[in-house]
Amino acid sequence: MNSFGRLFRVSIFGESHGEYVGVVIDGCPAGIPLRVEDFSADLERRKAGAKGTTPRKEDDAPEIVSGVFNNTSTGAPITILFKNSNTRSADYEKQRAVPRPGHADFVAAKKFNGFQDYRGGGHFSGRLTVALVAAGIVAKKILGVIKVESTILEIGGETDLDKGLQKAIDAKDSIGGIVECRVNGLPIGLGEPFFDSAESLISHAVFAIPAVRGIEFGTGFAAAKMFGSKHNDAIENAEGKTSTNHAGGIVGGITNSNEIVFRIAIKPTSSTPQEQHTLNIESGNVESFSVKGRHDLCIALRVPVVLEAATAIVLADLLLLNKKISVSL
Amino acid sequence: MNSFGRLFRVSIFGESHGEYVGVVIDGCPAGIPLRVEDFSADLERRKAGAKGTTPRKEDDAPEIVSGVFNNTSTGAPITILFKNSNTRSADYEKQRAVPRPGHADFVAAKKFNGFQDYRGGGHFSGRLTVALVAAGIVAKKILGVIKVESTILEIGGETDLDKGLQKAIDAKDSIGGIVECRVNGLPIGLGEPFFDSAESLISHAVFAIPAVRGIEFGTGFAAAKMFGSKHNDAIENAEGKTSTNHAGGIVGGITNSNEIVFRIAIKPTSSTPQEQHTLNIESGNVESFSVKGRHDLCIALRVPVVLEAATAIVLADLLLLNKKISVSL
Amino acid sequence: MNSFGRLFRVSIFGESHGEYVGVVIDGCPAGIPLRVEDFSADLERRKAGAKGTTPRKEDDAPEIVSGVFNNTSTGAPITILFKNSNTRSADYEKQRAVPRPGHADFVAAKKFNGFQDYRGGGHFSGRLTVALVAAGIVAKKILGVIKVESTILEIGGETDLDKGLQKAIDAKDSIGGIVECRVNGLPIGLGEPFFDSAESLISHAVFAIPAVRGIEFGTGFAAAKMFGSKHNDAIENAEGKTSTNHAGGIVGGITNSNEIVFRIAIKPTSSTPQEQHTLNIESGNVESFSVKGRHDLCIALRVPVVLEAATAIVLADLLLLNKKISVSL
Amino acid sequence: MNSFGRLFRVSIFGESHGEYVGVVIDGCPAGIPLRVEDFSADLERRKAGAKGTTPRKEDDAPEIVSGVFNNTSTGAPITILFKNSNTRSADYEKQRAVPRPGHADFVAAKKFNGFQDYRGGGHFSGRLTVALVAAGIVAKKILGVIKVESTILEIGGETDLDKGLQKAIDAKDSIGGIVECRVNGLPIGLGEPFFDSAESLISHAVFAIPAVRGIEFGTGFAAAKMFGSKHNDAIENAEGKTSTNHAGGIVGGITNSNEIVFRIAIKPTSSTPQEQHTLNIESGNVESFSVKGRHDLCIALRVPVVLEAATAIVLADLLLLNKKISVSL
Repeated sequence: MNSFGRLFRVSIFGESHGEYVGVVIDGCPAGIPLRVEDFSADLERRKAGAKGTTPRKEDDAPEIVSGVFNNTSTGAPITILFKNSNTRSADYEKQRAVPRPGHADFVAAKKFNGFQDYRGGGHFSGRLTVALVAAGIVAKKILGVIKVESTILEIGGETDLDKGLQKAIDAKDSIGGIVECRVNGLPIGLGEPFFDSAESLISHAVFAIPAVRGIEFGTGFAAAKMFGSKHNDAIENAEGKTSTNHAGGIVGGITNSNEIVFRIAIKPTSSTPQEQHTLNIESGNVESFSVKGRHDLCIALRVPVVLEAATAIVLADLLLLNKKISVSL
Repeated sequence: MNSFGRLFRVSIFGESHGEYVGVVIDGCPAGIPLRVEDFSADLERRKAGAKGTTPRKEDDAPEIVSGVFNNTSTGAPITILFKNSNTRSADYEKQRAVPRPGHADFVAAKKFNGFQDYRGGGHFSGRLTVALVAAGIVAKKILGVIKVESTILEIGGETDLDKGLQKAIDAKDSIGGIVECRVNGLPIGLGEPFFDSAESLISHAVFAIPAVRGIEFGTGFAAAKMFGSKHNDAIENAEGKTSTNHAGGIVGGITNSNEIVFRIAIKPTSSTPQEQHTLNIESGNVESFSVKGRHDLCIALRVPVVLEAATAIVLADLLLLNKKISVSL
Repeated sequence: MNSFGRLFRVSIFGESHGEYVGVVIDGCPAGIPLRVEDFSADLERRKAGAKGTTPRKEDDAPEIVSGVFNNTSTGAPITILFKNSNTRSADYEKQRAVPRPGHADFVAAKKFNGFQDYRGGGHFSGRLTVALVAAGIVAKKILGVIKVESTILEIGGETDLDKGLQKAIDAKDSIGGIVECRVNGLPIGLGEPFFDSAESLISHAVFAIPAVRGIEFGTGFAAAKMFGSKHNDAIENAEGKTSTNHAGGIVGGITNSNEIVFRIAIKPTSSTPQEQHTLNIESGNVESFSVKGRHDLCIALRVPVVLEAATAIVLADLLLLNKKISVSL
Repeated sequence: MNSFGRLFRVSIFGESHGEYVGVVIDGCPAGIPLRVEDFSADLERRKAGAKGTTPRKEDDAPEIVSGVFNNTSTGAPITILFKNSNTRSADYEKQRAVPRPGHADFVAAKKFNGFQDYRGGGHFSGRLTVALVAAGIVAKKILGVIKVESTILEIGGETDLDKGLQKAIDAKDSIGGIVECRVNGLPIGLGEPFFDSAESLISHAVFAIPAVRGIEFGTGFAAAKMFGSKHNDAIENAEGKTSTNHAGGIVGGITNSNEIVFRIAIKPTSSTPQEQHTLNIESGNVESFSVKGRHDLCIALRVPVVLEAATAIVLADLLLLNKKISVSL
């Protein structure tokens, strides 16, 4: 299903070369101020154009077509559309026979018995992250003073990001990176034991972002090398503040009021200028090919705002769930 | 919610010191052979007793009380109970005032306004993984020839596991580890684009396992340092076999018929013989204390069978979902 | 939530006077032929214009903006939009203070703290049934040879429908009616015991249709007066055919291969030319008023195609669910 | 699925002749007082023994095995078990070949490919309503001062219930009835537009009760004969009180603060002392047979408390959902 969330439910739809991509947000409380202008900053952050990103121009003007009246959420489902303007479908027939390695082309054809929209990745396109970002903007409104902030930590293993990017440019290749997300201001008690742990829900949403290969909370994989006496975070006061934060703000699946910290690994963009091999499913032969045209060298550069959106969507849902509990019966 | 799965839905319940922990499995197809003996091997693997695990004796005898008739699943919900026999609640009143760092004690008290069952971690106890393992055994039956296998890769940073364990024993401390899971025999096409990607669902279930701090698929975090031309897996034949498997068997959120490979980081057991500090919530002072009694030095040792269970639960669900699609209308 | 269905999930959105009403259909299998023309017949049936219906012209041209490629479903979410063209919002400020009896005006204002779109009923408008009908058309495609057919049985207590309608015209009032739905060609075994019984799911969807006041299956309320020996349907052959069909094709919540038969009661249109009383929420006084403008005298006249749609949506979902069970593991 | 509810989720399991029937209640807020004694009154009401009900003795002693600590809900899933003590399985092999008309025997065999537990109706047995009643008792605690009350209106078409029952006794046959439910004290605003209307959810839960053939809200089927000016309920004050209550307390799918009123039709007990015909699925012949042993002549007699439970389960869920909306962000 292309839906996520129990109270604040986000459904995304669309294809790279279809008429619209969009999102339906069900369960947004009434009374939230929401203007088209509110979307500008985050949509701008997602856009391409900087060094290492595709020069393709995308015009991401959100059309809010339901659920908002007088610039305020009504309580009814909010639908936001983005028109796809730059959709040259010319050569896609040819591409159909040659599934690009690292892309969903091959699995989509198999899963959907050849009926998938194969133009530019179709429904699997990163284009749909614009819908995620839009939902994230609404979610952030619900979060209020709770801050969700993502930054790039590494590109190609370099914390000097320009240096990492230059490696890719020099190698005429695409490259991966690591993105971190930090959340401040959360109350204690979000998340449920076991299946709906805060980590379960965050990772569920985060792996919906194309190109994510891993996620770690707090000390993460480094915790596997640690002793317990070093890893445990001593509780210091009645608000739950801990002296260290190896847990990354979540214990037993529940937020503990400390900063949530997690990192994700982003693989190198699957489209690379380098020559590669893949199967021609019509001829049955393995052929070499190279991806022409405009592509991101490092898709990690565009991930931070998408990661914030996925995280905010989860937290908005948990926050609404929490309200029903925190209120006395 | 303590439920997971769309067609094959698993709900777990119980507390460390309650009368039973158990599981309800809804949506298991009729006609699956299921005997109490089928549970022995995996339950035995989960048990303590080996070097580095608690000497506490647990007698895990499953009682199948619904959904199975004549040793075969009926199609009705399957309920499996495990009686808690070893439940000394003596000192728990005292423990209540002193939330153990790394444990859920503090967040549980806050989330549930002090009404949580605080004895031995209550509902947050690792004891509940016995219910996960039981559900995993049923899930594995649905998977048939598809094999889900987990192994420990590292303890305390050592691939020689005895050496890693000895570090903890020498330090009189608990220690973390890394566990890997591999799945062979899956068809192409499991998982959905975006929110229900195979990675989203697997990570959702996996983070339900206590002590998991991170997960990475295929090349994982190492992918963040790679070039695209090296990371992409060339498709070699019409069945989807790839020459390498950096993707870990999942592309675009969909299984591609290659081996699924992922690793998880397990933090050191929160209970450690070392002296630690925490807040006494009654006195308001930070106190030092140390955990007495029988505990696992390295909980990672007991994780593999639980990880297999969580994975099998997800894959059984996806396999049942896939059937409805693969059948011609 | 404005969503329904487990595998075939329908989400509707929009307002009477918003830019679009529409529907997202998630889980529709790939490979279903779907053209804009396929929508014409049922959309036409829903339209006003006949005797007893509003003379307001609605132009219901579906725009399929995702999930369909080369006139075939792709397996990705299908989104269908209907532009609202006839949206005179002139006098709605005035209406806001005077909640119309029988309409959702008052409860919507309370539920959404005054932030609801109050123009023409907003999200509560019968206009949204156009989205239901669109989803129903897709559902019917999945049903294939299974036929879902609804007819009006009574208007104002008269089986001669013209006579019933004339009563309303003569009385210058609106009037109710009874609509029946019959389904032929269903396999045995759809529905689940207890919570997801076929009746539970059908009635859930049917009460989403505005103005429905009751539903009865098979003999329905008359069964309450019957003896068991008369009500029980004797099974006659191995296909499950019964000699009578008092059960209406569903036993124990499960379809039994006989014709499904159920009836619904439709209340008289809430908008009536008659003078009525309601509270002016600004002045606090009860005032008399009468509804001006173009309205359906008998909304039951437009219900049959909507009822078919709601039913088809449920059955398409159950049929897809059934496939996963009927296939051998 | 055998689960129902979004925040307050009830899952029932068990078979007539299995070891236990039971219920898992997930999402019950912490801090609700809950003792075994609290279950007595409603369980007693469900019991047989009165005129017209089976003389079979059932001992319904609830065992609360999780989610309750110190006689208070903890916030973790509550599991309640009922041991089946009176389970004579002697003759069931014979019964297997002769599906009883009106019962689920035949459809269960088809749906579950012959693997169903066929003893005494198995999972389809009315025995499972004891689990519904138990969940209803917990739900009523959440409802607090909101009162849910059901009464029998008619038996065999007679409002003098003894007279109706006597008709069945005289005819040596089983008989149907009508049961009404009224709810007082609900706030305005429960329910959602369209798919999760209050009627949709109530009817969904109510049709989970075996033998229900119809449901009508407020004026119900009689509304189909009415004029709008008579049916509309004039709003009288700012709290939403209406002068009449033809709507039965729900408008546009949303509660309006007036009394909720609905009625359900209960078919005659399928087991009747009368001779009947059915297919012998082994011989392929239609045979006559009559049901021996102890059965309810009029199952409607035992329905009121089950109807209250189903209703309370829905309303508890809606009330918890409402809290998240009514709280200011």
